[in-house]
Amino acid sequence: MLRKNRLFTPGPTPLLPAAQVAMASANIHHRTADFRAIYSRTLADLKELIGTRNDVLLLVSSGTGAMEAAVSNLNSAGDKVLVLTAGKFGERWQELTTRFGCKVEILSAAYGQTFSPADIQAGLDSSIRTVFVQATESSTGVRHDVEAIARLLRSHAPDALLVVDAITGLGTTHLDVDSWGIDFIIGGSQKALMIPPGLAYCAVSERAWARMETTQFPRYYFDLRRERKAAAKGESAFTPATSLVVALAAALDYLRQLGNGDLGAGRNVLIAGAEICAEMTRAAAQALGLKLFASAPAAALTAITSPYAIDSGKIVAAFRDKFGAVVANGQAEMKGKLFRIAHIGYYDYLDTIGIIGALELVLDSLGLKVETGSGLRAAQQVWTKSNAGQLSRA
Amino acid sequence: MLRKNRLFTPGPTPLLPAAQVAMASANIHHRTADFRAIYSRTLADLKELIGTRNDVLLLVSSGTGAMEAAVSNLNSAGDKVLVLTAGKFGERWQELTTRFGCKVEILSAAYGQTFSPADIQAGLDSSIRTVFVQATESSTGVRHDVEAIARLLRSHAPDALLVVDAITGLGTTHLDVDSWGIDFIIGGSQKALMIPPGLAYCAVSERAWARMETTQFPRYYFDLRRERKAAAKGESAFTPATSLVVALAAALDYLRQLGNGDLGAGRNVLIAGAEICAEMTRAAAQALGLKLFASAPAAALTAITSPYAIDSGKIVAAFRDKFGAVVANGQAEMKGKLFRIAHIGYYDYLDTIGIIGALELVLDSLGLKVETGSGLRAAQQVWTKSNAGQLSRA
Repeated sequence: MLRKNRLFTPGPTPLLPAAQVAMASANIHHRTADFRAIYSRTLADLKELIGTRNDVLLLVSSGTGAMEAAVSNLNSAGDKVLVLTAGKFGERWQELTTRFGCKVEILSAAYGQTFSPADIQAGLDSSIRTVFVQATESSTGVRHDVEAIARLLRSHAPDALLVVDAITGLGTTHLDVDSWGIDFIIGGSQKALMIPPGLAYCAVSERAWARMETTQFPRYYFDLRRERKAAAKGESAFTPATSLVVALAAALDYLRQLGNGDLGAGRNVLIAGAEICAEMTRAAAQALGLKLFASAPAAALTAITSPYAIDSGKIVAAFRDKFGAVVANGQAEMKGKLFRIAHIGYYDYLDTIGIIGALELVLDSLGLKVETGSGLRAAQQVWTKSNAGQLSRA
Repeated sequence: MLRKNRLFTPGPTPLLPAAQVAMASANIHHRTADFRAIYSRTLADLKELIGTRNDVLLLVSSGTGAMEAAVSNLNSAGDKVLVLTAGKFGERWQELTTRFGCKVEILSAAYGQTFSPADIQAGLDSSIRTVFVQATESSTGVRHDVEAIARLLRSHAPDALLVVDAITGLGTTHLDVDSWGIDFIIGGSQKALMIPPGLAYCAVSERAWARMETTQFPRYYFDLRRERKAAAKGESAFTPATSLVVALAAALDYLRQLGNGDLGAGRNVLIAGAEICAEMTRAAAQALGLKLFASAPAAALTAITSPYAIDSGKIVAAFRDKFGAVVANGQAEMKGKLFRIAHIGYYDYLDTIGIIGALELVLDSLGLKVETGSGLRAAQQVWTKSNAGQLSRA
């Protein structure tokens, strides 16, 4: 039987066919009225998708570029900042702020865990200028409680800016940017937006813009004030990744259709879908006797501890070799210990049932005792009980 | 009659169809053996295309990102650097080095001009750490004599590193990176490589790598030493723009075919083609009584002074409205004063004759007295006398 190559990785994620076609046929110069119209509409649509009144900017970079932009635009040498870290991407905040010369306070939680409110509160005081966190830590599959963190910040360090890496969080978890007071939120193109990597985006609050008036770190390519001025004219400061912008415009059109003309509703369909796919996967894993790695699991992805201490690389390889399915191994210290199945963006019931059906046979092929079909049944029950089930019977 | 949308801008340039198809169908995760094979081959092919033994790296950014990488990786605060500027992109070196806090010496030439060897020599001394220049200044259409600059550097500031923005120069002008001693050369995907914007690349000398051991500017996203380590394993430090990398691999395959299996020969075909297209365009412009803007014209593009002081925006608009052809206006202070027709990458005889035939009717439609057909005839004569003409008769 042929094996289709399918991504179940927490980015890149499966591509929207309409976006692939748009991307291939784009033959457009960026300093033209045609492109300015697409670019302006894309920025406006992203605002609506995120659900914010803050300015949204696009950058030609991976998500890490936008993380650097948050550090270099919002801070100066010696600024005291608080990094909340519970995995590889939290550690990236630590590396970035350290490299730039901030005075870095660290609050860490063990891999697979999240932070306790008491610890966060203890780490906050009025000398903290900026707090950095992930919405969902893709390396461990944990969801952090951004709403609670934002609330603590407002009480205990009201002048501190809150920066949230929501690269895998946007479109998979509810984030009320303006009400909670997220000053800087970051997304990436290759996640819920269903297009290839190469674009990052961020929404920036007025408080954050005000901060940039005085911050001193050198920045040029990621100078957000320059980017904001260009965006107001429908342009980017430097040459934009035109093919990806055109793909993004097509993906946003699709998400609007998904919400019956309302991008916010489209986002909610996406989030609800990720939640059901994740719940199906967790139910299946547990029915198969597997252990979930995350204490507070994100809908973005499900991290499953490798059973019987077998190297999870064998599981990842069997998924690929037997079924063409690309799932993610653990990263860094977690390599070999867990595997990760993503639910970000363009996934549906058939994809999820398919990967669970593959998981059962992968475990079986490795000689692990599993009751084939029990994971699938558990997943079906989740779907049937969910709104998705109710809606489709309506 | 329908009007095809065609780019004659100095980037983005026309897309190679095989690259468009490859880009659309790429559905690949970057941490897989399949992608590592593509990435490693692409880096090796870029080395061969550039014709260098130096390490080549790819960055997810516009060309400006790689320019920033040159500044931030090769220098520290207070370093004395020399910027050679004769247009908008030279001014970008000035802005970047100033923003980062270098001690910036400027040698400027008027727009449309290049630097005199005597002035360069006068600007060089052993205290200069790095020299920044363009190979071709896209805003004015001028070619700078990089070979002569490199020679002066070796004599008068042998420890200074030479950084060359060859974003429009690579694939349009001969650059002997290793023999001349170019320490850092920069290219962009949307130029001679025939794919959309979003990737920059650079070749870095051993002297430049040694410099990075001690330089102090903060850098993370553009940390080239980290990128070099990743590249050695067929990876990028951060998520690569997979669709553009796959497109680039297809474009490099095409350029190898163009050189009968030899990428260096493919590059020479590209350069010779740009030279002939440019010479055809210059001959046509002069036959029509137009004035070339550049004193030392690059093959990358031909900048033509707007005749009778009419706003060149009208010429650009007529090209677009009558013929669907996108040519570039002047930038910044030169806006309205000149227009620019590019020859970078995927252009041939029919394209060039076509745009000259359009130019004649554009000028006629604006009420300018032109002898229709005289530009075309002059261009045909260039082609016939050229190697291209000789080869095709063989």
